Amino acid sequence: MDHKILQTTRELIDEAGYPALTVDRVAARAGVGKAAIYRRYASKAEMAFAALVHGQRLPPPADTGSLHGDLLELTRTFHARMAAPAARHVAPALMSELAANPELDSRFQDTFLAAEHAGLAEIVERAVARGELAGPVDPTIVHLLLLGSLAAGLYIINLPVDDAMITDLVTATATGITALAGRHHGEPGGEPHGDPHGAARPGPPSPDRA
Amino acid sequence: MDHKILQTTRELIDEAGYPALTVDRVAARAGVGKAAIYRRYASKAEMAFAALVHGQRLPPPADTGSLHGDLLELTRTFHARMAAPAARHVAPALMSELAANPELDSRFQDTFLAAEHAGLAEIVERAVARGELAGPVDPTIVHLLLLGSLAAGLYIINLPVDDAMITDLVTATATGITALAGRHHGEPGGEPHGDPHGAARPGPPSPDRA
Repeated sequence: MDHKILQTTRELIDEAGYPALTVDRVAARAGVGKAAIYRRYASKAEMAFAALVHGQRLPPPADTGSLHGDLLELTRTFHARMAAPAARHVAPALMSELAANPELDSRFQDTFLAAEHAGLAEIVERAVARGELAGPVDPTIVHLLLLGSLAAGLYIINLPVDDAMITDLVTATATGITALAGRHHGEPGGEPHGDPHGAARPGPPSPDRA
Repeated sequence: MDHKILQTTRELIDEAGYPALTVDRVAARAGVGKAAIYRRYASKAEMAFAALVHGQRLPPPADTGSLHGDLLELTRTFHARMAAPAARHVAPALMSELAANPELDSRFQDTFLAAEHAGLAEIVERAVARGELAGPVDPTIVHLLLLGSLAAGLYIINLPVDDAMITDLVTATATGITALAGRHHGEPGGEPHGDPHGAARPGPPSPDRA
């Protein structure tokens, strides 16, 4: 039934746009009761977010063999969904609903954001296992640097984010969290202690230039 | 008169909170006409943003002598304003107004966002002049990684952002844009060509480990 609700939501948005979407129309077209929809989604915006951006669970992120590759794959996938015109309508509406409704906010945190967080945690774990990161990094930081900055670019700054910008965001994030991991876990290159500005220097200077 | 309007806006928010704020009350208390307010601000949310977060111009960012220090100073200043309870009310309201009103959005871009952009551009220029960055980096990327991620953390993910997290965001951003500058401007450490994942590796490996 979940699939049917989300599929119908996408169809109706394609046909008439997000503003014309109503829970009533979705219920009628999908042949389900409104109560069944409201058991799953607290509002039209939450239902549309699930239909357009992602559901309450996500498949495991693609394993490309590198931290940069995994983050790039994930960010491109999210960008494709987040940048769609209907998603640009939904997201600001959902954000202001979240700010006004703590119950909806906590559902959103426990479902959609938790799913994003879990995907990023898996990418971080793989990078630690491969030895690309000196130790674990809080997935929240990765979330903010990558998906937070992307959301801000699309929904607040209203930028036309292209693939070159996505690649730059991913490169900066991958390099940045690698430095954080070194810093927090005492990797030689991470200059973990005693120099508060250490990890922010122009990449570790090569010894022959030092 | 600008100062008087913003000062009165802050007073009224302090006294009764953002939801109770109206342009009428600001006009009455400040002793100015509503038209004078609407010439400056298109809405209550825009006026409150100017009063709480920052005006349409910003003073030049503090010059601390390092890229990390400059970014940390700027981010702490923005965080203190952006995280205030009233700002948490205003921002989502403003974001949904921006999405619904292209004229307001373009004013917002040309004033507030342009002011933030200019401050970050100045920090980047100084870092290039000091030799910390191999060449200029698009200030938009810095904007997204730092203030975009902060806005997402505060207003979408609804995180209690503390100073440790701010410091991590700044460290990751400074390291990340340093790698981008190296990559775009051909610094030896930046591995600018031929290896699409180069800049994402755990800092450039030291030659003695390579």
